Amino acid sequence: MAGRISGNEVVIDNPSEAIRNYNKGYFGRMVGETLHLHLIEASFLVEIGRVEVERDGKTVTLNELMDMGIKVHPNFEISYLVFRDLRQRGYVVRIPQDGEDGFDLYPRGGAPHSHSPTYLVKAISERSPFLILRISDWVNSIGKRKLMLGIADEEGDLTYYSVKFFRMRGKMKEEESYEGNITVMGDRSMVWDEELSKKLQENFIGRTFEENVVQLSLMETAYLVEKGATAMKGNKKLSLKSFIKYAKKIQPDIERRLYAYKDLRSSGLIPKTGFKFGSHFRVYREHIGEGHAPYLVHVIPENYKSTWTEISRAVRLANSVRKQMIFAIAGSGIDYIRIKRMTP
Amino acid sequence: MAGRISGNEVVIDNPSEAIRNYNKGYFGRMVGETLHLHLIEASFLVEIGRVEVERDGKTVTLNELMDMGIKVHPNFEISYLVFRDLRQRGYVVRIPQDGEDGFDLYPRGGAPHSHSPTYLVKAISERSPFLILRISDWVNSIGKRKLMLGIADEEGDLTYYSVKFFRMRGKMKEEESYEGNITVMGDRSMVWDEELSKKLQENFIGRTFEENVVQLSLMETAYLVEKGATAMKGNKKLSLKSFIKYAKKIQPDIERRLYAYKDLRSSGLIPKTGFKFGSHFRVYREHIGEGHAPYLVHVIPENYKSTWTEISRAVRLANSVRKQMIFAIAGSGIDYIRIKRMTP
Repeated sequence: MAGRISGNEVVIDNPSEAIRNYNKGYFGRMVGETLHLHLIEASFLVEIGRVEVERDGKTVTLNELMDMGIKVHPNFEISYLVFRDLRQRGYVVRIPQDGEDGFDLYPRGGAPHSHSPTYLVKAISERSPFLILRISDWVNSIGKRKLMLGIADEEGDLTYYSVKFFRMRGKMKEEESYEGNITVMGDRSMVWDEELSKKLQENFIGRTFEENVVQLSLMETAYLVEKGATAMKGNKKLSLKSFIKYAKKIQPDIERRLYAYKDLRSSGLIPKTGFKFGSHFRVYREHIGEGHAPYLVHVIPENYKSTWTEISRAVRLANSVRKQMIFAIAGSGIDYIRIKRMTP
Repeated sequence: MAGRISGNEVVIDNPSEAIRNYNKGYFGRMVGETLHLHLIEASFLVEIGRVEVERDGKTVTLNELMDMGIKVHPNFEISYLVFRDLRQRGYVVRIPQDGEDGFDLYPRGGAPHSHSPTYLVKAISERSPFLILRISDWVNSIGKRKLMLGIADEEGDLTYYSVKFFRMRGKMKEEESYEGNITVMGDRSMVWDEELSKKLQENFIGRTFEENVVQLSLMETAYLVEKGATAMKGNKKLSLKSFIKYAKKIQPDIERRLYAYKDLRSSGLIPKTGFKFGSHFRVYREHIGEGHAPYLVHVIPENYKSTWTEISRAVRLANSVRKQMIFAIAGSGIDYIRIKRMTP
């Protein structure tokens, strides 16, 4: 079978060959009796030996075809790796007609004429920055499809992630108010007040220092002051505002974290520090005594920028301790986005 | 037993009480027949109920003693948590006489008059920045002791790390030179040359794309060009210099990573991308076929700054996949530092 280069596409003119290639795997798009193949599709068909491509009567090699693709399409080499891998796994993968960046992936055994695509797949280089704003824009804009990311590392190995908005719910009833003194000590606080200590222990706030003495993080202190407790620094009582001002010098992002903490608490969840897992919170759904915290929550601003290497590390670590990795995007509201490793 | 506040210390004047407190756990230092306790030591002895402290005839509470400590000593609250934890684990822990920041930790059952301290322990808040320069200065300056870091998270929970210079050795013989064409394609390269492909596969460089075709990272490409291979971009041959210039736009730290890659290769090791583990390299000691890569190597500049949260994540992930986490500090030379979680 032979195709020919036409502009930035490969075209198969022979009607029976065109139809056969379209029907066997749904490559390209039929225009009348001619099949138009994107350079990614053409490269794949050349690689597996199903199509030969000619220009001016001479065979075009895979090398030349890919070189052409790289000149014409941004991100061609990464897109090709992802397209190829998904096709090799037996999926129908198509380039969206509306020119949207990415691939439509159909359910196993599904075809374009009978099924809707389940995923929109974005092909991403490990080296491109991780911008949370771009990710959430994608999740927002893909309609009924789900978002899958295929990340190619520098050796061309692929890791897939599914990304979606996520809502967590817990069973813990939130206390309306707290009373008693909290002693601010450097970058944390202590509760020497026996009654308050007990109430905090019942609510899984802070950490037992010794019997009836509880140690608090600055953020927990702020949460409690907002709910009526009194923060003392030496003999001085600090208002919420002056406490936050003090705490911000030590922990500049305290307000953002507090915002997420309050939101999680109000959903019946129990957030505790996730430091050992490299995240802001590990989150329990009910009594901590029952053991497992199913979520790691990392609180980030809307303009958060990181590297895929960092994200890969975070998600992989969450995985290895049987937790889900959730990013809490704190802006005017809070959105939770789950990033999860998957095998297509 | 009673001590009294004297300046920024607690002093026990009664000779028999002084000697008993010194001998039972080696707290403080004897000056004549008087025991001088650091506020950290005094707080601990008050907390466990062994000493009572007075000022002007009135008892000083633990709360007040710690408040005093915070005013006088930077990092007091963190230091206290670490000191307390190590003491509770049954170790003799002492404040170095030379005023060095940190604690001397003696081997289990060891005492200052008969043993040398095995570790210098630094108490660090999760919130303080991770500066590699500071860490390597510490390792360089502590003499025969080893370095242990006690990191307190915001809830006061402690994680310990041992830190040391580290040398890796492998069994792979490095090839002196390579010949053949490499086709540069966007942010990676392809080797369509059959002979070169085979040689690369034997040396575990690149990744098999299909039979006799190998895919290379930009850094591997640079390594091979330096060793004689030819980089082609379209029909243009790129010199090493112009290739690096091109690659730097895509991967700004390529020279630093290449530097570490060459150093590892010259030590008989096989570095491959560590992207899936959130690090620059996973490193094998011999044939990849044999399986396990025992090291993750992350290449950083001398002025590298990060957060303890990130480091905690990296070390924990390495741990969970049975690898050691090594930081390669690339400056005028290369130093490798291993950070490993430990239980004292």
